[in-house]
Amino acid sequence: MINVTVWNEHIQDKSDEAVIKVYPDGINACIAGFLGKDEELNIRCATQDEPECGLPDEVLDNTDVLIWWAHCGHADVPDELVSKIQDRVLRGMGIILLHSAHYSKIFQRLMGTTCSLKWREGDRERIWNINPSHPIAKGIGEFIYLDVEEMYGERFDIPQPDELIFLGWFGGGEVFRSGCCWNRGLGKVFYFQPGHETSPTFHNKDIQTVITNAVHWAAPEKIQAEPIDAPWSESPEKLLNS
Amino acid sequence: MINVTVWNEHIQDKSDEAVIKVYPDGINACIAGFLGKDEELNIRCATQDEPECGLPDEVLDNTDVLIWWAHCGHADVPDELVSKIQDRVLRGMGIILLHSAHYSKIFQRLMGTTCSLKWREGDRERIWNINPSHPIAKGIGEFIYLDVEEMYGERFDIPQPDELIFLGWFGGGEVFRSGCCWNRGLGKVFYFQPGHETSPTFHNKDIQTVITNAVHWAAPEKIQAEPIDAPWSESPEKLLNS
Amino acid sequence: MINVTVWNEHIQDKSDEAVIKVYPDGINACIAGFLGKDEELNIRCATQDEPECGLPDEVLDNTDVLIWWAHCGHADVPDELVSKIQDRVLRGMGIILLHSAHYSKIFQRLMGTTCSLKWREGDRERIWNINPSHPIAKGIGEFIYLDVEEMYGERFDIPQPDELIFLGWFGGGEVFRSGCCWNRGLGKVFYFQPGHETSPTFHNKDIQTVITNAVHWAAPEKIQAEPIDAPWSESPEKLLNS
Amino acid sequence: MINVTVWNEHIQDKSDEAVIKVYPDGINACIAGFLGKDEELNIRCATQDEPECGLPDEVLDNTDVLIWWAHCGHADVPDELVSKIQDRVLRGMGIILLHSAHYSKIFQRLMGTTCSLKWREGDRERIWNINPSHPIAKGIGEFIYLDVEEMYGERFDIPQPDELIFLGWFGGGEVFRSGCCWNRGLGKVFYFQPGHETSPTFHNKDIQTVITNAVHWAAPEKIQAEPIDAPWSESPEKLLNS
Repeated sequence: MINVTVWNEHIQDKSDEAVIKVYPDGINACIAGFLGKDEELNIRCATQDEPECGLPDEVLDNTDVLIWWAHCGHADVPDELVSKIQDRVLRGMGIILLHSAHYSKIFQRLMGTTCSLKWREGDRERIWNINPSHPIAKGIGEFIYLDVEEMYGERFDIPQPDELIFLGWFGGGEVFRSGCCWNRGLGKVFYFQPGHETSPTFHNKDIQTVITNAVHWAAPEKIQAEPIDAPWSESPEKLLNS
Repeated sequence: MINVTVWNEHIQDKSDEAVIKVYPDGINACIAGFLGKDEELNIRCATQDEPECGLPDEVLDNTDVLIWWAHCGHADVPDELVSKIQDRVLRGMGIILLHSAHYSKIFQRLMGTTCSLKWREGDRERIWNINPSHPIAKGIGEFIYLDVEEMYGERFDIPQPDELIFLGWFGGGEVFRSGCCWNRGLGKVFYFQPGHETSPTFHNKDIQTVITNAVHWAAPEKIQAEPIDAPWSESPEKLLNS
Repeated sequence: MINVTVWNEHIQDKSDEAVIKVYPDGINACIAGFLGKDEELNIRCATQDEPECGLPDEVLDNTDVLIWWAHCGHADVPDELVSKIQDRVLRGMGIILLHSAHYSKIFQRLMGTTCSLKWREGDRERIWNINPSHPIAKGIGEFIYLDVEEMYGERFDIPQPDELIFLGWFGGGEVFRSGCCWNRGLGKVFYFQPGHETSPTFHNKDIQTVITNAVHWAAPEKIQAEPIDAPWSESPEKLLNS
Repeated sequence: MINVTVWNEHIQDKSDEAVIKVYPDGINACIAGFLGKDEELNIRCATQDEPECGLPDEVLDNTDVLIWWAHCGHADVPDELVSKIQDRVLRGMGIILLHSAHYSKIFQRLMGTTCSLKWREGDRERIWNINPSHPIAKGIGEFIYLDVEEMYGERFDIPQPDELIFLGWFGGGEVFRSGCCWNRGLGKVFYFQPGHETSPTFHNKDIQTVITNAVHWAAPEKIQAEPIDAPWSESPEKLLNS
């Protein structure tokens, strides 16, 4: 079983009618709903309004893959929690960052860059699959079409992805690196651009397939218990000769 | 002219006899000395014991390439200064991190990882040139030989380099990714492993050549004045049709 | 001086009225014309209808950067010539492949893949600059706009580029990795997608800037005289101890 | 089930006593032996002395992962067969190239470079695991130690690997990129350096683990039936509007 924690700031989806209409139980509930159909996944939800932002140590220590949707509340996630999440990624936990999580502290921390981009609401998108044999693209055709999605456009201020899976095309004239993979420490990171709060993106079957695939791809073989450090080391040659 | 600031914590090289013997005027003075022979470079030194760690805004704002040697004083570099340096790298400033700077806050910040490694004093190293047509390797033969250097060994906890230039071989049995390039924002980052404080590494002609080459490679065409942000954008298609 | 050979199959631009109208002296003459304004470049033209396809040994042996435009005549370039060009790239010569050269034998040889793509005539393109601090993008703004260009769409069957510089957006709904860099041996390879024979693309100032920049980027420090081989090697440790 | 074809030129291991002593039934039999213990793998052997080099269409068309060991017979593998193998890799077949297969036509074809290196018999090797969370490194500790292995040294004339898994250290002073991954078309490529014919390398448990892991990693979800081509494409926007 892969232990998945679906984290959502859960702000607009409990206060903004336009968002509640699309995600009446919250964005996290929608994501947890489709992931829960996969019998290899053990799903838990967590939100920013819970104590310790829903991520006390016992939750984080039992998470194999963390999904992160956030928008308005980035600044209120404590730096100490961000450090704990980063540490756990570096020891093996997978992390999947959705849409406006591009500006989350944890994504910026893992990337080392601003992760800024262009944006504009009310566009349509065609997400091209440029890496069709990658496990994250399994079951996806030439492109995913979204008839309502927020435009996110280049330049996306990220380090060069280790693997580029999807490229987004927007009706208004922009392009975007919409699905990007990186390795950080022992952990895997996937950023996926679609998922604006007023668009029914997470109800789209292809989007659900990509996120489910990404959970399997990001799941670690194991998570290292001890912190990653810089030890003094005996020479293996000396050991050989002794 | 390329404005280069050679930054050194300048702790052991003014307090530890074994270091002073090798670098009587400080590590920064040694590096500034050989760089100063290049007429395209305008060299300034800065050390951690100066006000604002030697990097007040007027210095940082006039630096094209920053060289960073540090070891004992990492923790005492203020986070605010680290943020300023990071911001300037993302807007185009080059940065070259030497040896024990692998554990500096600024390198960890730019990488998003711990940057940990194995280490052991008192080894010898052969630094193999695996990318001989790269500008940083110009003038370097098959390998650089150092008969005294601290061992730095894998696993080096870094993101996959955008370009790998040098691989280190140590007599004690270890290997290391000794010369690594990354892009971060609009800036270039080069990490170069040799340069232990008690070894005469910075007196070695080949090492001097690599660092000089790296300054030229990392120098920006220009540094963006405004911060990198995420603007709302008018559709270029709409502009086209209007 | 950088010795540049502008190679063009020169078939449609001497037989097809629609092409001759745009490039009355041939595509090579147009490219040579704007490159010739750069005083650091020494330009020569060569076409497929000349003896030895315009690339006898004395030409190839004196070329630092080869520019390749081709479309209808791919199959008629002899394999032996392709091998010679490949060998020279691996020893350091830069090569720039334009538009329909994606299907040239030399590009397929250097990539190891089919280099296939989708296509359709009669679209408009916006070429986004996603790597603005790269030397090839010097002087280019957020995007280059071409109001008539052939659509080239993903999936482009290429190895992951070492550096991705431009992403193309097409009005018809497609995206493309339009400017891609690779290292092969000691040589640099740049593929640039725009340049359909009936479009005035090579008259566009931004396109001219990119190609001129690419020539400087691809120019080698030197070209290795001897072939790249796999020599038996004495141990450097044994040499050290003897 | 993953259909694996273990291909071996089978020349020295039936004619050279020093090789027969280590691999009495052939190198292929040794590899097939340990792979055969994995119940998810369906193993077949093929050798160069069989009709059509052991790879008639019906074999190749039923191979998910091809393992290739070769040394003396590279030149005798027909170019047409190499083209068929390349085509199948580009359509999804995994390929694992062992040791002296660095100079095989198929590896050179997929890489686009000479794949040359330095070599010397009679060294010892420590293969460092620099990517411990990669599926190919599963179950491998900090390094694999081989007390007899041929030295293969840098510069290894290959394109930059998409993922670098292992770095080799040799007692004689050299280093090597010993485990390298690339994507080519829809297929995965793994090159693994150890495996000299007179060394008992393929009897080593860690080496067996790496090769078994690599088979699972390289196995395709599916292999595309039709060739990869460059089709004329209707605009998806036009389809949308009609």
